[in-house]
Amino acid sequence: MSEHQTLSEAFNRTAYRLSGQGPRNVEVLKSVLEQVDGSTESDMYGKGRLIEDFQSEMAAYLGMESAVFFPSGTMAQQIALRIWCDEKKLRQVAYHPLCHLEIHEEDGLKELHGIKPILLADMNRLITLEDVKNLKEDIACLLLELPQREIGGQLPAFSELEAISAYCREKGIKLHLDGARLFEILPYYQKTAEEVCALFDSVYVSFYKSIGGIAGAILAGGADFIAKSKVWKRRHGGDLISLYPYILSSAYYFRERIGKMDQYYRDAKVLAERFNQCHGVNTRPEVPVSNMFHVHFDAPKVKVEPVLISLYEESGIGITGNLRDFDEGTSSFELSVGDLYPQVPEEKREAMFRMLDAKLREM
Amino acid sequence: MSEHQTLSEAFNRTAYRLSGQGPRNVEVLKSVLEQVDGSTESDMYGKGRLIEDFQSEMAAYLGMESAVFFPSGTMAQQIALRIWCDEKKLRQVAYHPLCHLEIHEEDGLKELHGIKPILLADMNRLITLEDVKNLKEDIACLLLELPQREIGGQLPAFSELEAISAYCREKGIKLHLDGARLFEILPYYQKTAEEVCALFDSVYVSFYKSIGGIAGAILAGGADFIAKSKVWKRRHGGDLISLYPYILSSAYYFRERIGKMDQYYRDAKVLAERFNQCHGVNTRPEVPVSNMFHVHFDAPKVKVEPVLISLYEESGIGITGNLRDFDEGTSSFELSVGDLYPQVPEEKREAMFRMLDAKLREM
Repeated sequence: MSEHQTLSEAFNRTAYRLSGQGPRNVEVLKSVLEQVDGSTESDMYGKGRLIEDFQSEMAAYLGMESAVFFPSGTMAQQIALRIWCDEKKLRQVAYHPLCHLEIHEEDGLKELHGIKPILLADMNRLITLEDVKNLKEDIACLLLELPQREIGGQLPAFSELEAISAYCREKGIKLHLDGARLFEILPYYQKTAEEVCALFDSVYVSFYKSIGGIAGAILAGGADFIAKSKVWKRRHGGDLISLYPYILSSAYYFRERIGKMDQYYRDAKVLAERFNQCHGVNTRPEVPVSNMFHVHFDAPKVKVEPVLISLYEESGIGITGNLRDFDEGTSSFELSVGDLYPQVPEEKREAMFRMLDAKLREM
Repeated sequence: MSEHQTLSEAFNRTAYRLSGQGPRNVEVLKSVLEQVDGSTESDMYGKGRLIEDFQSEMAAYLGMESAVFFPSGTMAQQIALRIWCDEKKLRQVAYHPLCHLEIHEEDGLKELHGIKPILLADMNRLITLEDVKNLKEDIACLLLELPQREIGGQLPAFSELEAISAYCREKGIKLHLDGARLFEILPYYQKTAEEVCALFDSVYVSFYKSIGGIAGAILAGGADFIAKSKVWKRRHGGDLISLYPYILSSAYYFRERIGKMDQYYRDAKVLAERFNQCHGVNTRPEVPVSNMFHVHFDAPKVKVEPVLISLYEESGIGITGNLRDFDEGTSSFELSVGDLYPQVPEEKREAMFRMLDAKLREM
């Protein structure tokens, strides 16, 4: 049977998972709405208590003057960069080569906004203060993603971040935070969201990563910046008559999970350590700085997939449904620790890791 | 008390309404989700049965090759025009001066896509074949809104529409349908959606007008056009990880209400006739061609509002929460007949109209 099923099929049949918050099914929304009175009025084109209350709550949490709810981070971040570019009358920004805007948005920033990005650092490492200082061209805004997801969720030291922020302020460069996983890094930095955001001029956070909502984002910044972002939100077609399905679920799961980020982070460190003990496996970063990390195998996808499929069948534990070739005969996947991890009985998990180690040695 | 409350407050206290499908509250979504199994899998970035099935259903209903679900019509229509402009390498289109893109979208078409619109006809009448023939400049696409909402929901004769379509095809001009209220005009034309859409190259329909969904739109056209629109949807930030709250409610209320459009239209004609019998009141159009029309008073808002507030208090029937000054000392509001209209007992409605007529004569 193993040879005929795909990795994702085998994964979908497992009883336990190391990663995530559970299935992305309609129950995620149903269980939110069961808590909400049916007579609660919809938001209306960005107005009304339902949306305004959540925006105020998040502005306060992030320590920013104002905030606006967006259907997506893609929309929120392009708009943030556009506002900073318009302010400086310069359509040039800088970000990491593996920035979401560069690799996942079909070049919306260039095609819709005519903004030219300068790629800082190389694909395999974080942006440093040196990279910013060595910029040959002027930019309106620097975007930093914390943690840098595509390289396993790495983080600069907080002091490096402070130095970059100070340098940008001195040079009149706006600093924007791609905080899709901001909540997840606070335990490592031992900072409040407010303390991190204070280094930035504008901040985006997401509600469907570890928060586990359905979709939706908050963009936060100064009152003038946010007023402008609402105009652009309408231009983009994001000022929906009703965004409440996303707002209600974002608010609900934020309250449910924001206090769990420390546990996710501690679990991630334990889990990464166990992966690193397996033959031909290493994690990136070696010691996680959030609830996420990447697992790398010293063998290509074509060799590792059958191992994982049989592992899932024999252990009942799924570790990923999506393995990809990395470079030079290696493969990798992303893992984000959430509520499912502690549901795996420890002895089953240990047995699975012993099995994985043995299978990789035999491979 | 009357003097101290606003029209919308008085309206919100009425037991009956002539217009609409009911309150826009969370119950609208709750009652949909009660019918859906919690284990139903979310759509994922435009993929999955939940979204693909509805897209196929709507493509078939509209008689178009392919369709894609969008969070908003604003996004869908800008993208449609952009695709046609790119195809012709000409960023110029034509539409009515009161087109949604011209007056409600903060100039997204110009600011995001650099497309220049030519305004056809004047504000107070429909676009004719003559207007199109008299165009002095070349255009990539002509957008027609059926019915033309801002002038009361007027419609050209179907033969005029056919002639415009034939002319555009001959001249290599793409024809796009703003069909936000397409479902509502089929009873008047006595045509299927497919027969209307056959005249157009691309079509947008909405699910929160008379269908009464939460939000969402379908853009339909040829397979190549729709493939391109998905790329632009991602660029705009509309390719959300999950759109299912909108899709499920669109599908649910489409099935519930698509068969009622004929009744809404017939009710609208009766209702408009009754308004036209009142002193100093006329409707636009005089005889509705869909479920919607505008009611005009021969007096400004400042004089009519107190009349309406006392009417609502005495009759218990709300006719609008939003009156606006029109021109030269007149005022108007929009009315769309839906499920609430037949809930108003006929004798109460008659009494209200006699009261309105008397109050307007005394004014």
